[in-house]
Amino acid sequence: MLARDKEASKQRLRLWIQLLRVTRGAENHLREYLRVHHETTLPRFDVMAALYRRPDGLMMTELSRMLLVSNGNATAVVDRLITEGLVRRQVPRTDRRSVMVTLTPKGLKAFEAWAGDHEREVAAQFNELGEGDVDALLAILKRVGRKDKP
Amino acid sequence: MLARDKEASKQRLRLWIQLLRVTRGAENHLREYLRVHHETTLPRFDVMAALYRRPDGLMMTELSRMLLVSNGNATAVVDRLITEGLVRRQVPRTDRRSVMVTLTPKGLKAFEAWAGDHEREVAAQFNELGEGDVDALLAILKRVGRKDKP
Repeated sequence: MLARDKEASKQRLRLWIQLLRVTRGAENHLREYLRVHHETTLPRFDVMAALYRRPDGLMMTELSRMLLVSNGNATAVVDRLITEGLVRRQVPRTDRRSVMVTLTPKGLKAFEAWAGDHEREVAAQFNELGEGDVDALLAILKRVGRKDKP
Repeated sequence: MLARDKEASKQRLRLWIQLLRVTRGAENHLREYLRVHHETTLPRFDVMAALYRRPDGLMMTELSRMLLVSNGNATAVVDRLITEGLVRRQVPRTDRRSVMVTLTPKGLKAFEAWAGDHEREVAAQFNELGEGDVDALLAILKRVGRKDKP
């Protein structure tokens, strides 16, 4: 490897370490915040957020696939949310064989409170950055992984 | 909230979603790569990397604190690495009450192979970025969380 490529490779490793530091730091803060202020967890938040974006509901297989990423067990998370009256399972009239999960009105209201606080806490994580920094980061990050991954 | 602040807050939320996407995508790739090519895991890699940087060894409490972040169980990880002859527990002569974990020569050699491949795979994750992008990202990320967090 040429010296220049070697330095470029080390610089990408430094970038990776900073990405992990920033992401894990923010995630730890958000996890703790949701636990203390809303007695909830990140996988629960993620499930509720996905359902919020899809008023018609999601199938369990779709939820499971999404949660692969946040290491949650979709069935356990959904069962718990049902017990608390925040989500429900429904069989749509158009396809009696499928089961859709949707937010209940109580779940919708709860999620809106969680999401407002979550957004404020996320913004606070990037306190040190000006708007130009945020725009620059976002523009560069959007290009990562766009070409060679599915 | 003023409209401008509101847009700034939304932009930070978009940044957070991109950070999660990029970090989780790369982490999933690295997890799979280490599993397939070196039959190892990210918590094992993290433990070995920490020991590699500290030839005098680390105490179990230090390793546990570090692994909080990567969700690993330090004792289980270290026990497994000992079984495979990659690390060992030692009682230093200067403090007979403490137990230090260090890499064995076999562990050192194994880690150097893992680390070389890991660095190459990390670099490949940022293929789409030029050196200027990498430098810019790194400079901005280094400022995040530096003021108000321990």
